[in-house]
Amino acid sequence: MAPPSPINFGILGCAFIAGKVSRAITLSPNSTLYAIGSRSYEKAAKFAKENGFPDSAKVYGSYDAVLDDPEVDAVYVPLPTSLHIKWAVLAARKKKHLLLEKPVALNVGELDVILEACESNGVQIMDATMWMHHPRTAKMKEFLLDSSLFGELKSVHSCFTFAVDKNFLENDIRVKPDLDALGALGDVGWYCIRSILWAADFELPKSVLALRGAVLNSAGVILACSASMQWEDGKTATFHCSFLANLTMDLSVVGTNGTLRFHDFVIPFEENKASFLTSVKSGFTELVTGWEPKPSEHTVSTDLPQEAHMVSEFSRLVGSIKFDGAKPETKWPTFSRKTQLVVDAVKTSIDRGYEVVEVKS
Amino acid sequence: MAPPSPINFGILGCAFIAGKVSRAITLSPNSTLYAIGSRSYEKAAKFAKENGFPDSAKVYGSYDAVLDDPEVDAVYVPLPTSLHIKWAVLAARKKKHLLLEKPVALNVGELDVILEACESNGVQIMDATMWMHHPRTAKMKEFLLDSSLFGELKSVHSCFTFAVDKNFLENDIRVKPDLDALGALGDVGWYCIRSILWAADFELPKSVLALRGAVLNSAGVILACSASMQWEDGKTATFHCSFLANLTMDLSVVGTNGTLRFHDFVIPFEENKASFLTSVKSGFTELVTGWEPKPSEHTVSTDLPQEAHMVSEFSRLVGSIKFDGAKPETKWPTFSRKTQLVVDAVKTSIDRGYEVVEVKS
Repeated sequence: MAPPSPINFGILGCAFIAGKVSRAITLSPNSTLYAIGSRSYEKAAKFAKENGFPDSAKVYGSYDAVLDDPEVDAVYVPLPTSLHIKWAVLAARKKKHLLLEKPVALNVGELDVILEACESNGVQIMDATMWMHHPRTAKMKEFLLDSSLFGELKSVHSCFTFAVDKNFLENDIRVKPDLDALGALGDVGWYCIRSILWAADFELPKSVLALRGAVLNSAGVILACSASMQWEDGKTATFHCSFLANLTMDLSVVGTNGTLRFHDFVIPFEENKASFLTSVKSGFTELVTGWEPKPSEHTVSTDLPQEAHMVSEFSRLVGSIKFDGAKPETKWPTFSRKTQLVVDAVKTSIDRGYEVVEVKS
Repeated sequence: MAPPSPINFGILGCAFIAGKVSRAITLSPNSTLYAIGSRSYEKAAKFAKENGFPDSAKVYGSYDAVLDDPEVDAVYVPLPTSLHIKWAVLAARKKKHLLLEKPVALNVGELDVILEACESNGVQIMDATMWMHHPRTAKMKEFLLDSSLFGELKSVHSCFTFAVDKNFLENDIRVKPDLDALGALGDVGWYCIRSILWAADFELPKSVLALRGAVLNSAGVILACSASMQWEDGKTATFHCSFLANLTMDLSVVGTNGTLRFHDFVIPFEENKASFLTSVKSGFTELVTGWEPKPSEHTVSTDLPQEAHMVSEFSRLVGSIKFDGAKPETKWPTFSRKTQLVVDAVKTSIDRGYEVVEVKS
């Protein structure tokens, strides 16, 4: 059987991250760069030229034109978060499948409008949390699910920070209340929360508490914050996210039998391989002068970067719907919604002066 | 000049950890195992035989006899925490310098009685937090103090857990309210708090908040807990300590320019060398598909285990007092007291139902 036609991607806007995802669409075997739309035709044309779009690709001077092109199967939406609700809903109504940048929405209310539009129009939605698709992530999940190796989850700590410059603090969309009002919580905290939920097998915490010391800019946008979470069964988690500290991406997951750690959870240090450390039933030498066994390092090679794995998985699902009449995969919107629920709870906790917030699905 | 005589150590009790410290006293060039005292003479004699005491060592059937021996310069006290106040004060009154196991006291009130006894009797006190003395610790401190490499401290996370068995949960002194009432907070949380204070250059946090989800046994002793701390200048820290999860010893210290991480902060994986990871001004490759620069690993070799470095430094200070008329070094009791203050604040926060507790020195 011949492979089905690749999924035709349209891209809404020329955000920096769209360059990385355009490359991923090119690298992924089941997708193709079909159209780019920007409010400025010239910007769109320049973007297409600089990002390896084929000569046949359509260049449009508006987002609407991309959505109106009947050959576009799916759109990648890297617009500012405040614009997601408008363009994601429009895209769904035009039957375009949606690869949506994170944070997916300003709050779960807006997300639910988007999800409803996707569901009623039978389109796939997936958020662009790339690391979920790295083959390392699947390997680590095997470790966490093996009760003899990892046991029962007890605690997680996640940290994602990067140090921005003065220009970013004044001008980036991620510090603007009308564009990306969630600031560092939406941009980097999203990943921390996702990693914690991933480790907890997407069981929602019972309650969330933001920790004192969140840093907000004069417009009230979060530049740095920490939070803790607590589950019904006693497991706990903490995270720290910030625009104000050196680039750090730590995840530590501690179970009754084992421990998992890595320091590049969002973007691996290298593109073609990635590592993680595990310890299992760690103990000490006789006089407690060393460890036995020591942690071991596992390296996972990958032919494609994680973002191409993401595009490939998304395109596979879209292809199943388009060619085989399958239903959209509900796992991905469920992950998005749970992540957004916890983002919202952290934001609410900060807004209420660091009160404990119950998480309700 | 001939080297001065070694410092004569007496050991109070035959705790398991005393075996490790006895070996350290033997390994340290300026100390000697001089006496062991136990409530049982037979136990003391057996301990001396099994732990390399010289034939000339004194074996006593009581702690008092050790303190009454005029040749004993210093005592190592690994007794249950509830006994520290009695025996540490008695030792100080007998002019014995004090190497005191952690947690140093049940609370800062008791510690202050001990410290007052040491001060008024001119004896050195140091708590037995071994990792403070590893040459790796000094190397890491150089990194943290170099503002071009590390910059300003922003956040710390520390985790020390180990998984105990049923016997420990029922019988170990560390789960008994009349012996080591601080439980996991005193036994392992002590190290987390010390590591955070160390990273913060021993600036006390403004406030401490224990996080919901602490696990207490039926007698009210802490088996697992987490807490967060906040400083006046906005830096924050979290830690998790537990008897209920796989052995894990993580410390991550994030600054404006650099990040420091290691996974064996209390007891290095190996005795003769230890590593840590640093990142400095970390960034991404052009398309954000990898890191540039990547973190680097530093390995520090050591001829002596960290506990022998500890004994050696303690003995050097005792020797300066004994032979050169120096004053006791105040740095060590200050570190102990600050650690105890934060231990107390976490305990108070738990006792008050997870209220924020101001830390007052």
